[in-house]
Amino acid sequence: MTKVMYEMIEAFMLEKMNDSAHDCQHIYRVLGLALEIAAHEQGVHDGVLITACLLHDIGRGAQNQDHSLDHAIVGGEMAYKYLISCGWRHETAEHVRKCIETHRYRKTMQPQSIEAKILFDADKLEACGALGIARTFLHGGVISEPIYVFNPAGEIELEGGGGEVTSFFQEFNYKLRGLYGQFHTVRANEIAEQRRNIAIAFYDNLLDEIKTTHVAVQRIDDILV
Amino acid sequence: MTKVMYEMIEAFMLEKMNDSAHDCQHIYRVLGLALEIAAHEQGVHDGVLITACLLHDIGRGAQNQDHSLDHAIVGGEMAYKYLISCGWRHETAEHVRKCIETHRYRKTMQPQSIEAKILFDADKLEACGALGIARTFLHGGVISEPIYVFNPAGEIELEGGGGEVTSFFQEFNYKLRGLYGQFHTVRANEIAEQRRNIAIAFYDNLLDEIKTTHVAVQRIDDILV
Repeated sequence: MTKVMYEMIEAFMLEKMNDSAHDCQHIYRVLGLALEIAAHEQGVHDGVLITACLLHDIGRGAQNQDHSLDHAIVGGEMAYKYLISCGWRHETAEHVRKCIETHRYRKTMQPQSIEAKILFDADKLEACGALGIARTFLHGGVISEPIYVFNPAGEIELEGGGGEVTSFFQEFNYKLRGLYGQFHTVRANEIAEQRRNIAIAFYDNLLDEIKTTHVAVQRIDDILV
Repeated sequence: MTKVMYEMIEAFMLEKMNDSAHDCQHIYRVLGLALEIAAHEQGVHDGVLITACLLHDIGRGAQNQDHSLDHAIVGGEMAYKYLISCGWRHETAEHVRKCIETHRYRKTMQPQSIEAKILFDADKLEACGALGIARTFLHGGVISEPIYVFNPAGEIELEGGGGEVTSFFQEFNYKLRGLYGQFHTVRANEIAEQRRNIAIAFYDNLLDEIKTTHVAVQRIDDILV
């Protein structure tokens, strides 16, 4: 891949990701993780991998405007059309499209090529470790998701994430806790394992801090007359 | 303090805090922490402390609408007027006002009474440990504050928080790192110390995850032609 082509594709990405600075930071981190994983794999097509990393989230703007759209499908189509307009061959542009289409976690449409598997793994590593915690809270701030909710028994609800009313603890147990050990590549599993302890320690400490504090509130029953 | 009076003041607080569920969770956690600290102190006026905890952030709505206002001053005045309207004596309502006025970190207007010191400490404990990290990111999501920014030398900027353009790492070093050991009460310093390790470990791991990933992006210089 030429430096000129990289800079063209990067400029196209930046134009499509105009919504926020930290979304762009995510793109460069995914690119870095993908290059690290690729260094441990054989026969990776660097140009396809780099392009798929840069463009994998360009469909997010469309999905944000219309929640019935899937940013992976929309982004794959946008990338394909753009690359054809740049003079790419159909087969190579189609390869990038498939990588982008399968980067999102789904039971159907699993990543097939090594480049698609690397993009998938790099993107999922962003939900591991301290960074996965940080990104979950930042998103929680945007959508007003609380750290915790109480269930009808008056306990902090830890199960059942993914629904409409949810919390950090539910999201962690539903999405983040199960990621480790689920990667396609050896290197991604290694990086995830390095990041696992801090995520679990953070969750455990946060829950303990909150539980202890809410137990202390019950002292009020001995004070009020 | 009677249960009826507590429930009246709680209802007044909930009415004034209508902006978000997790702000109310903060109020109850501050109350729990304050009761825990008070159990280790002598001669605490329970009614003043509980009331000051419940009402300490009721001025936030006014401050959010007019940033020239200080929610501690506005909230103290709102609390005083409300308590007088409930038939409280001037001296006791004024005591609550002073607690609320001095709960915010400032070089002037330090908390004087034991109740004011306990409220201050309980509120600052909310910025310690895993909870302090979680609340900083949730607020970061609301105000679109990134996890990190690069300085002109191309390194992640770690100094200089508190300005207009800032990041999680800068906020942590500016506001959170120095909290420990700065409390008025012995029990608050103990609780802060218990929470310190997870906050530092999280910061260190997050910074390492991000730095490692951005270093990996530089592999691209060996790939592009």
